Formats: sequence, structure tokens, C-alpha cells
Amino acid sequence: MTTINDNYLKLKAGYLFPEIARRVNTFAQANPDAKIIRLGIGDVTEPLPEACRMAMIQAVEDMGSRNTFKGYGPEQGYTWLREKIAENDFHRYGCTVDADEIFISDGSKCDTGNILDIFGDDNIIAVTDPVYPVYVDTNVMAGHSGEVNNQGEYEGFVYLPITAENDFTAQLPTQKVDLIYLCFPNNPTGATATKEHLQAWVNYAKENHSIILFDAAYEAFISDPSVPHSIYEIEGARDCAIEFRSFSKTAGFTGTRCAFTVVPKTLTGKARNGSDVELWKLWNRRQSTKFNGVSYIVQRAAEAIYSDAGKAQVKDLIRFYMDNAKIIRDKLTEAGLTVYGGTNAPYVWVKTPHGLTSWDFFDKLLQTVNVVGTPGSGFGAAGEGYFRISAFNSRENVEEAMRRITEKFRE
Amino acid sequence: MTTINDNYLKLKAGYLFPEIARRVNTFAQANPDAKIIRLGIGDVTEPLPEACRMAMIQAVEDMGSRNTFKGYGPEQGYTWLREKIAENDFHRYGCTVDADEIFISDGSKCDTGNILDIFGDDNIIAVTDPVYPVYVDTNVMAGHSGEVNNQGEYEGFVYLPITAENDFTAQLPTQKVDLIYLCFPNNPTGATATKEHLQAWVNYAKENHSIILFDAAYEAFISDPSVPHSIYEIEGARDCAIEFRSFSKTAGFTGTRCAFTVVPKTLTGKARNGSDVELWKLWNRRQSTKFNGVSYIVQRAAEAIYSDAGKAQVKDLIRFYMDNAKIIRDKLTEAGLTVYGGTNAPYVWVKTPHGLTSWDFFDKLLQTVNVVGTPGSGFGAAGEGYFRISAFNSRENVEEAMRRITEKFRE
Repeated sequence: MTTINDNYLKLKAGYLFPEIARRVNTFAQANPDAKIIRLGIGDVTEPLPEACRMAMIQAVEDMGSRNTFKGYGPEQGYTWLREKIAENDFHRYGCTVDADEIFISDGSKCDTGNILDIFGDDNIIAVTDPVYPVYVDTNVMAGHSGEVNNQGEYEGFVYLPITAENDFTAQLPTQKVDLIYLCFPNNPTGATATKEHLQAWVNYAKENHSIILFDAAYEAFISDPSVPHSIYEIEGARDCAIEFRSFSKTAGFTGTRCAFTVVPKTLTGKARNGSDVELWKLWNRRQSTKFNGVSYIVQRAAEAIYSDAGKAQVKDLIRFYMDNAKIIRDKLTEAGLTVYGGTNAPYVWVKTPHGLTSWDFFDKLLQTVNVVGTPGSGFGAAGEGYFRISAFNSRENVEEAMRRITEKFRE
Repeated sequence: MTTINDNYLKLKAGYLFPEIARRVNTFAQANPDAKIIRLGIGDVTEPLPEACRMAMIQAVEDMGSRNTFKGYGPEQGYTWLREKIAENDFHRYGCTVDADEIFISDGSKCDTGNILDIFGDDNIIAVTDPVYPVYVDTNVMAGHSGEVNNQGEYEGFVYLPITAENDFTAQLPTQKVDLIYLCFPNNPTGATATKEHLQAWVNYAKENHSIILFDAAYEAFISDPSVPHSIYEIEGARDCAIEFRSFSKTAGFTGTRCAFTVVPKTLTGKARNGSDVELWKLWNRRQSTKFNGVSYIVQRAAEAIYSDAGKAQVKDLIRFYMDNAKIIRDKLTEAGLTVYGGTNAPYVWVKTPHGLTSWDFFDKLLQTVNVVGTPGSGFGAAGEGYFRISAFNSRENVEEAMRRITEKFRE
């Protein structure tokens, strides 16, 4: 008799974005003439940089001739891509990261979930609240939690609130935790972490033999020169941190699919016999056995991001979305709303007005001005009373959405 | 203190192909003038079909304009691809498979490993011997086995020998097993299963509430009209089987990356509370949470396989490799070797001569004729005394390798 993984039954009914889609579809069916503007899910809208497209066309041509055809590539990714990443994303900021510590993948969502494969099931998990739901759900699926309570919190996890009250800075836990998820620039709040704050986390992790799972998917949106781009800018991080990066938001790759994960060779975890085991070896084995590398064509597109033309085009893309973020911040402030984030991250985190719940504000915006955002409570209990607006859309849509909101809120 | 997944420490030292690569590299360094021909790892060598390349170039162009740009796609794959697969790979053979039971992925290696996420850890696992190592290793990693013995067999797994003695037909187990891995046309033996044989397995699975994990990655190489292409051609299979398919060998996609898995909505597994849970829902949740879909560009390439031009080009590609297989079969037979497979599968399974072990034969071929194959024992204890030769290479290399072998063995 085949049994199922019972942990799946603990998961809350709907993953956040399907529930949003359901409400939007219901509204759209009832109001077929409504011109809905979606600033909810963080998906890019602008064309893929030309340098990436040209590199892909060349790569497709490579596939057309026996001499340049590519079959299975290294599961870890091609060396030419790993070396460019090491140079441009790490050495440039003074970080020691070797090319063979970089594992190319098809997405950070996959990596942040799959990384749990190499860890024991007895680790205590710490997440911020609000948080990217994938960190939580993948731990529930792996059996690292108890049941969920009315606030949507799972028994066994340590939740670290990040709210306006603590300036969106996760306090160090008072108890020992083993795996710590940190995401900066933060999704969903748009907050950043200072070097001092990250240094405190690294010190905590080293002291407690914890591992920090550092998600830097939004690193490219940092404009403030004092904000660190990588956890490896922090002294000691190579002994306690894995970093996740993605080209999804950096270069508009959400539909093209490429990301990478850094696992320093200096990282270890404890085996049951008390020995220290290199995490790099475990992740390398995991990826060799359960993954077959990213499409050659897509890896060539990612490589092109590091060409001179690619760098310039990506810079323009980032500036475009950050100009959107500025418009959103300015207009919502003008409408009397309190806003956070949106200066080093493509997300603006809005305090809901008049004490509305996040979902009430979601419904209100959808129904009155036909604008879709993301309810803060969908990211965790401490996100209640907040609302995320994404800067990923055309200028026209962002301006129109803000015009509708400011008009409505001036009434 | 962060703990690791101790099950990784149970894994045998080297995954098969890295060990082959190590021996070949050592030989090549010592003999820099040797012209080594690789018929080991099953990787394709011929150009990607033109229809696929043209579709990708169009898809890259789509990514260049805001109106046709694609961001996140459905995690399960685009409907236009899933529908073409349902029609061409299943309805054509009279199988009931709906488009939304098809999950597009970046590889069958990933899927056959990831599928374990949705099952309980108490299931009894049955594998054939020899077997594709990924089925075994991923179960070891998930903690479904005890330690490994001297023969390379893990405690707790049920091994079903497939050898010349039983005509490469896995006998039904005498005990109850829960998850059964079957691969037909078989990797590594090149054997096929009759409808009657698969019917016996389906009957067993239904009787014992087991699930068959059916790997049909080599389905496209079937030429005998009596050999089933899908497990769903078998009465009752929708109640007990998941099927894995890949474009890797079918259309030369090993470096392009696209595959799919069929999870019928009629399948269930037992929860601890005794209820029956739909496996489709679990897999859908798994893929939505831990995966973000296959590159739009790659999905367009896969779709092109089902166009008239694509079908004709794939047919030519398959014929090319199967002509290689025929040359290999004929020449090795001429050299006095006993061969199996290679008529409905791109692998020829050779009995090693003079009672040589698989690795001894590997070293002998490498050192005397500079031809690389795969030792049968690398696929399991019952593969000892066999050797796999792959038909994936250029005609010139295949002919040259066979010329060297027949000359050597005629001596």
C-alpha cells in the first residue's frame, strides 16, 4: 500500500498567488469591462535585454551543427558562466567566491526549496515574518513543522517579525536556531539590511553553528552604496552562509529561467556521528543526482548579462523599474498613505489605511480602482495591515494605477 | 548546530559516470595521442532538429517585444504544449491522458528524483537490477534504505534481476512492494516489455495498492508495432502508474532540457489517517511550490517536435541512431560477442567475453582499442558480466569503434 507524504496535508489551503488569481478572475468575470492593472505578483514586463537575445540566437545556431552542438553540460553549469559570475558579482565587491562554489540552476524558487535535501530533519528553522512563502511551505513539506494555527503560523518554526516597529530589522532570536532564512533587499517589505545588521547575524550563526540561507534575488536593485550586495561582504560569512541569486528580476528572466546558488567549500554541518561534513560536497552530489543542468541556450543568455552591452541594458532595465517604484512611492504618499521600501528594491510596502486588514484592502483596491496588489498577511501574520505593490509593470500602467488610487483616496 | 542529511553518507562513493570520466581522463593523460571514441554515457551527438531551432529563434524574438514577452509561465507548463503531447503521445495510441495530467519539466532525471517528495518514507521500493542509478540513489538520499553491502545493494530495497536467464523480464516480487520502478525500453539492457508483461505488473500493483513509476524515456526508439509505447496502453494503468517521458533522446534535447511527467487524476495514495489522497494534487502542489516552469523558449522548441516538419526530422534522427545500433549489433556479433537490445532501444547490451568482469572489459576496451562503454555492474550487481554500448555517436565514430573492436577480437 503506497503511502503519501502526510506533511503535505499540513499546508494551508492556497498558496498566496493562486488565491489572488482566483479573486481577480471572479471579479473580472463579473466585471468584464473593468481594466484591471496587476501590480501583485512580482513578474517583470519589459523585453529581455538585446544582448541576451542575441546570445541565444547564436546558441541556437550552435545547436544546428554537429561541431558546435551541445549535449549534456555539467550539472553545476558551464565554467564560462560560473567564472563570469564569480568575477562580476563577487570579486568586484571584494568577496572571496570561487567559480566552482557557484551552482547554476533554473530558479531560486527551486534552489531555496531543494537545499533542504542536504540538511537533517531535526534543525530548528527561523524565518522572518512576513516572508516569501516558499521558505515556509518547503519546510512544512519536508516535515520540519507541526500543525498550523489560526494566524497561519506553523508549530516548531521560529518567526522573527519585521515591521515598522523594529524598522524592518529582524531581531536575533533569543533561542538557538539552526537554519535561518534572510532575504535582503527584502521581499515583500522592500527593506534592506545594513552591514552591521548582517554582521550581527553572521556572528550569531558562527557562535551557534547555524547556517544562514541568504536570498539576494533583488540585489541588482540596490542603489545605496552603503548597502551590501552579498552576504559574503560580511566578515565570517563563508563559514555560515549559503547565498541564492537569480537573473529573474535582474535581467527579466522570469520566463527564461536561470539562477545560481553559492555554497562555499568552507561550510560544514554535523553528521550524527559528530563529524563535520562539507556542505559543498553534499550539494554537489544532490545536483549531480537530481538535476541535469540548465539549458545551454539559457546559460549563454545569462553569460551575455556580463558583456558590456548586457551590463548597460540591465542597468537601463533596473532604472526603468526603480523609476516606477519612485512614482508609486510618491503618488501613494501624496494620497496620504504610509509607504516603506521601493528605494533599493522593486517593492513598495504600504500600511493599509483606516486599520483595514490586508485582504480587505486588496478587495477594496480591486473593486474600486481595479488595481491588484498583494495582501501583506499572505506573507505571514506580521504582514497583516500591510500591502505590497510591485514596480514591475509598464510606465503607462503604473501611472494609470496611481492616478486611480490617488483620485479615490482624495475623495 | 546545523545537522546534515545523514543518508547522503550511505551513498556509494562515485556515481557511475564520474568514475568512467576519471578512468578515461587518466588514460587520456597517459596516452595523449590515443583517439578515444566515447560510446559510454548516453548522450546525443547530432544537431537539434531544424523545426526546434526555428521555433526557438521565433520565441527569442517574442521575448524582444513587450506585447509578446513572456514572464512567469504556468509551473505545470504551457497548455499549448501539454495539449500537443496529450494528442500525439497518448490519444494516438488510444490512451486516456488529459493535458492537465501532463507536467512539463526540465528533465526526467529531476522528475524521477523529485517524485519521492510526495510519497511517505515507509514505502517498500522495488527496482530492477541492473537499473538507472538515479532511482536508487535518490531513494537512498531520502532515507528509504539501510546500508550498502559489498555487491553495491542497499538494505531494504527489493531488487528484481533482469538478465539473459529471464529474458530481461523482471519477475513479479513474491512480497508486497509499494513503489516499483520500471523502465521500458530499458536503460541499460535495451530490452522491451510486452503488453502481457506490463499487464501482469499493473494487475500486481492494483492488487497491492502499489504505484508503478514507469520511465519511458526511450519510447521513441520502438520500431516493433507490438511493443507498447506507454504504460497507459495497459488496462488499469491509470489507477496505479505515473509515467516519465523525455525529449532528451527523442529529439536531441540533452543540452536543451525538456521532459514531462504524467500523473493521472485517478491515482491515490494512503494518508496516515487511512484516507485516500489524490497524487495529482500533491504533485501539482510540489511543482507549484518548488519549481517555476520550463523556459518559454525551450517549451516552444518542444512544441515544434509535434509539427509536421518536426515529426519528420525526429523520425530521421531516431533512424540515424538506430542504424548505428544495427551496425553495433552486427559488428559485435561478427566479432563473436553475444549482444542483446539495440532493436527498440539505442543501447546494445553485451555479454563480456571470457568471463571478464564489467570493469575489466571496460579497461580492456579503453586500453586496447580506445573505446569507452559503460560497465554493466555500474547499473547493479546483476549487471556484472555485461557492458553497455550506446548508439549515440556519429556514423564515422561508430564504424571506426566497431572496426577496432572486430579487428581486436578476431586476433
